[in-house]
Amino acid sequence: MKKMKQLLSSDLIKPLFKEFNIGLEKESQRITPTGDLASTDHPKKIGSRDSHPYIQTDFSETQMEFITPVFDSSEETLRFLGALHDVALRSLEEEERLWPLSMPPVLPKDDCDIVIAKLSDQGDVNYRRYLAKVYGKRKQMVSGIHYNFEFSNDLLEALFREQKEETSFEAFRTACYLKASRHYLRYRWLVTYLFGASPYAEEGYFFKEPANEPVRSFRNSHFGYTNRPEINVSYESIESYVADINGLVDKGDLIEAKEFYSAVRLRGTKDIDELLTKGVSYIELRNIDLNPYAEYGITMETLNFLHVFMMTMLWLDETDTPADELLKTGTILNEQVSLENPLEQTKNKEEGLWLLKEMQEMAAKLNVSVDYQEVIEASRQALESPENTLAAKMVLDSRTNQELGIELGNEYREQAFSKPYQLSGYRHMELSTQILMFDALQKGVKVEVLDENDQFLQLSYQGKSEYVKNANMTSKDSYIVPLLMENKTVTKKVLAKAGFRVPAGKEFSTMEKAEQAYDLFANKGFVVKPKSTNYGLGISIFKEGASFEDYQQALRIAFKEDTDLLVEEFISGTEYRFFVLDGQTKAIMLRVPANVVGDGKSSITELVAEKNKDSLRGTHHRSPLELIQLGEIEQLMLKEQGLTVASIPIQDEVVYLRENSNVSTGGDSIDVTDEMDETYKRIAEEAVCAIGAKICGIDLIIPDKNLPSQKSDKTYGIIEANFNPAMHMHIYPFKGTSRRLTTDVLHLLFPTLID
Amino acid sequence: MKKMKQLLSSDLIKPLFKEFNIGLEKESQRITPTGDLASTDHPKKIGSRDSHPYIQTDFSETQMEFITPVFDSSEETLRFLGALHDVALRSLEEEERLWPLSMPPVLPKDDCDIVIAKLSDQGDVNYRRYLAKVYGKRKQMVSGIHYNFEFSNDLLEALFREQKEETSFEAFRTACYLKASRHYLRYRWLVTYLFGASPYAEEGYFFKEPANEPVRSFRNSHFGYTNRPEINVSYESIESYVADINGLVDKGDLIEAKEFYSAVRLRGTKDIDELLTKGVSYIELRNIDLNPYAEYGITMETLNFLHVFMMTMLWLDETDTPADELLKTGTILNEQVSLENPLEQTKNKEEGLWLLKEMQEMAAKLNVSVDYQEVIEASRQALESPENTLAAKMVLDSRTNQELGIELGNEYREQAFSKPYQLSGYRHMELSTQILMFDALQKGVKVEVLDENDQFLQLSYQGKSEYVKNANMTSKDSYIVPLLMENKTVTKKVLAKAGFRVPAGKEFSTMEKAEQAYDLFANKGFVVKPKSTNYGLGISIFKEGASFEDYQQALRIAFKEDTDLLVEEFISGTEYRFFVLDGQTKAIMLRVPANVVGDGKSSITELVAEKNKDSLRGTHHRSPLELIQLGEIEQLMLKEQGLTVASIPIQDEVVYLRENSNVSTGGDSIDVTDEMDETYKRIAEEAVCAIGAKICGIDLIIPDKNLPSQKSDKTYGIIEANFNPAMHMHIYPFKGTSRRLTTDVLHLLFPTLID
Repeated sequence: MKKMKQLLSSDLIKPLFKEFNIGLEKESQRITPTGDLASTDHPKKIGSRDSHPYIQTDFSETQMEFITPVFDSSEETLRFLGALHDVALRSLEEEERLWPLSMPPVLPKDDCDIVIAKLSDQGDVNYRRYLAKVYGKRKQMVSGIHYNFEFSNDLLEALFREQKEETSFEAFRTACYLKASRHYLRYRWLVTYLFGASPYAEEGYFFKEPANEPVRSFRNSHFGYTNRPEINVSYESIESYVADINGLVDKGDLIEAKEFYSAVRLRGTKDIDELLTKGVSYIELRNIDLNPYAEYGITMETLNFLHVFMMTMLWLDETDTPADELLKTGTILNEQVSLENPLEQTKNKEEGLWLLKEMQEMAAKLNVSVDYQEVIEASRQALESPENTLAAKMVLDSRTNQELGIELGNEYREQAFSKPYQLSGYRHMELSTQILMFDALQKGVKVEVLDENDQFLQLSYQGKSEYVKNANMTSKDSYIVPLLMENKTVTKKVLAKAGFRVPAGKEFSTMEKAEQAYDLFANKGFVVKPKSTNYGLGISIFKEGASFEDYQQALRIAFKEDTDLLVEEFISGTEYRFFVLDGQTKAIMLRVPANVVGDGKSSITELVAEKNKDSLRGTHHRSPLELIQLGEIEQLMLKEQGLTVASIPIQDEVVYLRENSNVSTGGDSIDVTDEMDETYKRIAEEAVCAIGAKICGIDLIIPDKNLPSQKSDKTYGIIEANFNPAMHMHIYPFKGTSRRLTTDVLHLLFPTLID
Repeated sequence: MKKMKQLLSSDLIKPLFKEFNIGLEKESQRITPTGDLASTDHPKKIGSRDSHPYIQTDFSETQMEFITPVFDSSEETLRFLGALHDVALRSLEEEERLWPLSMPPVLPKDDCDIVIAKLSDQGDVNYRRYLAKVYGKRKQMVSGIHYNFEFSNDLLEALFREQKEETSFEAFRTACYLKASRHYLRYRWLVTYLFGASPYAEEGYFFKEPANEPVRSFRNSHFGYTNRPEINVSYESIESYVADINGLVDKGDLIEAKEFYSAVRLRGTKDIDELLTKGVSYIELRNIDLNPYAEYGITMETLNFLHVFMMTMLWLDETDTPADELLKTGTILNEQVSLENPLEQTKNKEEGLWLLKEMQEMAAKLNVSVDYQEVIEASRQALESPENTLAAKMVLDSRTNQELGIELGNEYREQAFSKPYQLSGYRHMELSTQILMFDALQKGVKVEVLDENDQFLQLSYQGKSEYVKNANMTSKDSYIVPLLMENKTVTKKVLAKAGFRVPAGKEFSTMEKAEQAYDLFANKGFVVKPKSTNYGLGISIFKEGASFEDYQQALRIAFKEDTDLLVEEFISGTEYRFFVLDGQTKAIMLRVPANVVGDGKSSITELVAEKNKDSLRGTHHRSPLELIQLGEIEQLMLKEQGLTVASIPIQDEVVYLRENSNVSTGGDSIDVTDEMDETYKRIAEEAVCAIGAKICGIDLIIPDKNLPSQKSDKTYGIIEANFNPAMHMHIYPFKGTSRRLTTDVLHLLFPTLID
């Protein structure tokens, strides 16, 4: 490991050194709106803790633990953590919040009121009972972040090829992690200095407060969640590490290996003994306090610092100082720094400056990105000016520690509820996909975003994987069915053959042929439309027939949009969207054109502004409803009614601002599932079955939704079948009951999923 | 039925009157190249006669019968008939042809050499033995066209609502068909006059030739395939029609109802007695001779005439003449006209002119299209000038009747083979779809074109229906799989997770991020490409790394094509397309850039012209290969090699005209399925399985196709997986074995299909 700096800065290896993998675990206490520890159980809405991959409980029933998957970037990890927070906060009952501090909120006087996590595995419960006995329940209530770090495998392989000391790749990889771990244990005091964020303890943590002065980090000091001082483990070699831990367990000093609460744990195998053969494949840093000012407990800047810090731990030359001595020094320095007053300069400033200089040199050699350089520079300034540290910020905050916790906890909860249909971190994805991801995360279905721009997910549950695009395109439908639905002519042929009523009509590809067919349509209501466009463009509707000239004009308009057009009979009635999934009508929606309802006082401009305040309304399809516009089209529509934007409609008068009922132009979505006569549901279901679709939005024209009908009656008409039907408008309708279609999709994909 | 003309010309009914349904049956004798009756069995390549919906045998083993489905237009029917001819002609063995005349070719002297169709149903065989006994085998060798005609149901329903005479719709519909039938029988002589096309009989038909002079139609005279004169059936009412036929069967004059060979048969039910309750739903005209000048035995003009003639038969007012007398007159007139000399005017000219005037008047009132008006006018002229009739044309032909039959039979066979990859009538559809349709028709799978422009078919076999688009998109693939393949990033992720080698790389959506990653790629071969374009646009290849400036330039080029780009390692080797279907590698193709091979004499221009003569080369993807161009790009490529189009390459020198190997730019397709090491087939199959596709074209880069490999070896690389892989290039390769992938698709859809 002698020429490490040289190797790492070589042209071939340098780019690989910047690649890494990261996974986070983050604990938080559930609290009441007034900052007391919650007395409720783990939220029922969240899938079973026995198998939930992301949301668990740690020591106590109130201590939620969020676990991200492993990603190759800090951004990815942080936004997944954000999504988990959205899911958790919206799943909490009785308006609970998450306590944003590492040190617990005011704890109940009686130990019995601190409830050990109600896990179903008796071994897990017993382990926690043991911890309560040995460390006391109160110490176990401290929360923090565990940062799991892995160098890129390509880096380690490239280094292995270049070095001479080790003969096995596993041994070499282990040696790298041991080196980084020793350095980390030695220099971790800097992390405590910069990011320590537990200056105070609330009532109930200490029986007797140790000092009146604030500190940098109670949690990282011996007052925190640490082993007894006699628990020493060597990081000299993997053999000594494993032997020491096993020895402590044998002696009864530890009940099992996981009770070893070092700031760094060597990881990669299920069983500690396997480390001897398979080697270390990543390390777990455990000394990161929760940052209360960060919505999810940690910032991008901190993550970037930790990454470049870990790089430095591998980069630095090793001295001849024995490993045990390094560790001892590290522990002493960390304890010192932890208990310093956050507003005072640290005693280790000089070493810190040296370390940061090393980091800066490395950064320059490796040509790392600007955000990394900035975070190193900011750390240097914080070393000079302690008021820039996180602990100092908390001490200088005008609020008391408790006020801070309560206020920020409330703020983060409000943010999670401000747009409850969106998912933090994934807000630019399609709304239905965001909601599907939310449901999956909530129920404990694993989510991997394979392509964000393409809305492409991989979902896994109980070892079974499914791919989903646009939240409704799955393996459950066959390839040919959406292609069939995409083609209006084919859809109509298939439905007509199966005995359903579809608008009678003809398809034309030349003006001449279409003109010849005029008298087939001339005397009844009909529609001229381009064959394959979908957005209402080029459509002419003649409710009671048309002159030949008007017919020709309509043909010309439609041919502008497509090379083929359809002339179809006009079926009168109201159009409803039936969402049919797995043979069942799950939701029925009526779409109403953009409109306002008068109050006898407000102008149309004011009524629109008022209606647009609804948090469900937004822009660009990232909200379930769109903002109502008052543009040219709307003003023209008003003019035709003898109105202007300044007109004041009388009480309860409905003023329509659009002809078309699309939600995308400000229309209202109204759920009418329960009001629709059951017979139409059967018709929709049978029609979707005839098409062969598992998931389908099928549009029916119905003259009276209260009058029963049947397939052969033909009082209804089927207008269209959609293979990519919007789901969000059913889930967050303007009016009526929400239909959680995304959950239905999950059940379709994973029939064993528990609600 | 009194006010029929008035009703039919009313605004509401008029357009419906022009709508109709039609189906054709056409018989043809198989002959040898020299015009003798074929002695072979029904072709083995054609699916079993027991269940074939389209290609059967009539009386003799040599007499093929083509049956079209029912269509609502003559064009559709005729092109389907054309497709059946392509299938039949290309399925014949020993260079057989189809005899294009109604009257049989020279027949063998010995009755035993006229072989009754070898059907598996003994009843069918016995019926033919009975016919041979009663009529003689020779009369049964006459061929013709049966024209099945149905008025549109909308028309009949509309008329029924307006009329007062009948109380049941079925009775009314039957009355309409009876009226049309009576008129047809009365006036059918005009059809014989215009389209009679059997002026001569070849040797072996008559024991003694009745006259030396040619006639209009032996087939439609008593010399043709008619019942004995005593077989009379009334068309007065459906009751009398059924009673008469049943009486003849009871008396033993007919063996069963289908032996009644009237020019019009009332149809619609399986059993004749059911006509009494269910009514007539269509009629079958049986007196149409084969037109030898028409490739498929009948022209569009004749079909248009028959249609407008049938309309007239309903349109004409009925007189008080009793039905039996009408029929008797009709039979006498038809016999007269049949035996007239084709070059002489008919004795019925005056009646014919009156009838055509009625037709013209009707056409004008109904505003029918120009082609109909033209065909009526042409008929009028033919009535004035008998040399315009079909029989006269045959008589005036410089060839003997036998020469005519042989020459035209040969000509039609040559046309069927000129572009054997295309299917008559459907040549503008995608090539793979045409080939799939061919295979389906050949094997007896029902084919319905649901949308031509969309290449959308419905195939049915043994009662099971399947939809197919682009010949390879079926219900066997799931919806999500092609979406997965469409996304290069997702495909790579899925394949990499499953342990396959894919080019390592990164996706970028900003110039900045892409630039930052430069040193990851700088020192090895890499490719910069837009994420989702497919035609080679915007791709830069650096086989041995690139400078930062070149890298930036490549990024800019790729970003012009897409908002996202991929930078990937370059894998060296040759690219092969593996076509994997249902887990098996069915074909492997090497694509070679457009090239010519020198002969030491010809210039490049001449070599290209020569190579382009290959009938497999064409334009616009309607041939398996494209014509080689000598445009700007090709000339530039020549220039870079120090050549011009006038250069004369030496013997066996290969001159490449393109860099890219696409077949669409004149490249060659070479089948290498049998030469590829088996291990790569396994890799391709496993990769397609990992993706989950049933039909997939997967592209592998292979350094040496003869050296074995395995999944984990990673000597190969998987570049892309295609969900809509071209099939025609494997079926008609430039070089190597043809792989009939369309047949594989049929077997995938219908596992019980017999080859």
